[in-house]
Amino acid sequence: MRRILLLTEYDGTRFAGLQRQREGLRTVQGELERVLPQIGALPKAVAAGRTDAGVHALAMPFHVDLEGRIPVAKVPEALNRLLPEDLKVVGAREVAQDLHARKDALWRAYRYRVLVRPYPSPLLRHRALWVRRPLDLLAIREALPLLLGRHNFLGFAKEETREGTRELLEARVEEAEGEGGLEVHFTFKGRSFLRGQVRGMVGTLLEVGLGKRPPESLKAILETGDRRLAGPTAPAHGLYFVEAAYPEEKLSP
Amino acid sequence: MRRILLLTEYDGTRFAGLQRQREGLRTVQGELERVLPQIGALPKAVAAGRTDAGVHALAMPFHVDLEGRIPVAKVPEALNRLLPEDLKVVGAREVAQDLHARKDALWRAYRYRVLVRPYPSPLLRHRALWVRRPLDLLAIREALPLLLGRHNFLGFAKEETREGTRELLEARVEEAEGEGGLEVHFTFKGRSFLRGQVRGMVGTLLEVGLGKRPPESLKAILETGDRRLAGPTAPAHGLYFVEAAYPEEKLSP
Repeated sequence: MRRILLLTEYDGTRFAGLQRQREGLRTVQGELERVLPQIGALPKAVAAGRTDAGVHALAMPFHVDLEGRIPVAKVPEALNRLLPEDLKVVGAREVAQDLHARKDALWRAYRYRVLVRPYPSPLLRHRALWVRRPLDLLAIREALPLLLGRHNFLGFAKEETREGTRELLEARVEEAEGEGGLEVHFTFKGRSFLRGQVRGMVGTLLEVGLGKRPPESLKAILETGDRRLAGPTAPAHGLYFVEAAYPEEKLSP
Repeated sequence: MRRILLLTEYDGTRFAGLQRQREGLRTVQGELERVLPQIGALPKAVAAGRTDAGVHALAMPFHVDLEGRIPVAKVPEALNRLLPEDLKVVGAREVAQDLHARKDALWRAYRYRVLVRPYPSPLLRHRALWVRRPLDLLAIREALPLLLGRHNFLGFAKEETREGTRELLEARVEEAEGEGGLEVHFTFKGRSFLRGQVRGMVGTLLEVGLGKRPPESLKAILETGDRRLAGPTAPAHGLYFVEAAYPEEKLSP
């Protein structure tokens, strides 16, 4: 039995999120697990994280266990022949038997794409959030450092029951010239994130960028954990799971 | 009556091309003409060019005639409220009464996007042609100048009946780093193009880039007009109508 770490790219538009759910709901995990037995793998795939319906991924890791004798180098193509066009394997490597895609991830990175222009873009309608008015990046850059480090992020998240302390390692905003015009990209790197945390932070930062709230208003959200003090949850279709990292020693068999 | 030049962006994936067709087929022109009367315009829109099913546009011009009193600045938003999400107006200006979007276009520009990487991309599956092997850009750059100027382009096109002489003003290839990895972009600018000409040229240039034919093999295609000498028609989903230009004096009322 070999443990394989798969990297997957998916278009989240037509998925009811990543995590396997009841029959009839189309999920990333469900589609992947459905085809694994056909290449001699166990029908179980464990992801580095969860993404909601509509959220995309550039390289979401899954660990799977391979019983058959297919060479690892042939795994992506073999799976891609079986997978739907909105979910493909873009990398595979044999790793340590005990590597766990969720528990061993050192950090995870997300990006949020915003398209800033007067009119909406048909070509990017499922790929970036459209904002009509320019964003004040200086104000956003004043707010971002407040989020860095260890905080209670419950005030930005969807869940209210779990313990909310998380560590944010990186928080950036950059302009990028895309095919559809000016884009603003938010990047967040953290050990782990609460459900809805990234979209809650982006929704709040967009209010900062639109002059609807001062940068320092983020402090009270972190101090109180009160969801009502934060901005709205930004829509799913602008969010991308970008990358997860693992300890070097577990990345070889 | 005011003549308005509209710029439209569309995702060609779910359209049976630009040109209005028989009932039941969803076309860009059909969708636009359907909503024009609701803002006080005549139900007729004339485009700068035609695009096939699956081909996209960043700024396809249409001229329309406005009877009602809506200010031009409000036209895009008024139409966008009525248009489907895969077709939007991204610009509007009042122009000379006799500007004709097709007949008066000085030139048209197209881009073709190719994604070069080992595995397919779910996020770009309707936006760029996926090619597994690297392309030899030096060979392609040797071939491109052969296409410039006035030639009989019937050997690259889909139609065999019409006169095939066209003038190509610009032909470029560039590398670009996209979200999904390395992209290769072809850009063509010409007074006008034959149906399928751009995709025929791209299909042939890709064969040059993959070492399947020498750059100078394009000469015989231009000299004979024989479609069988050219490469296959590149798929529609990588092609974008980018821009058309009009004489300055016709761009004001």
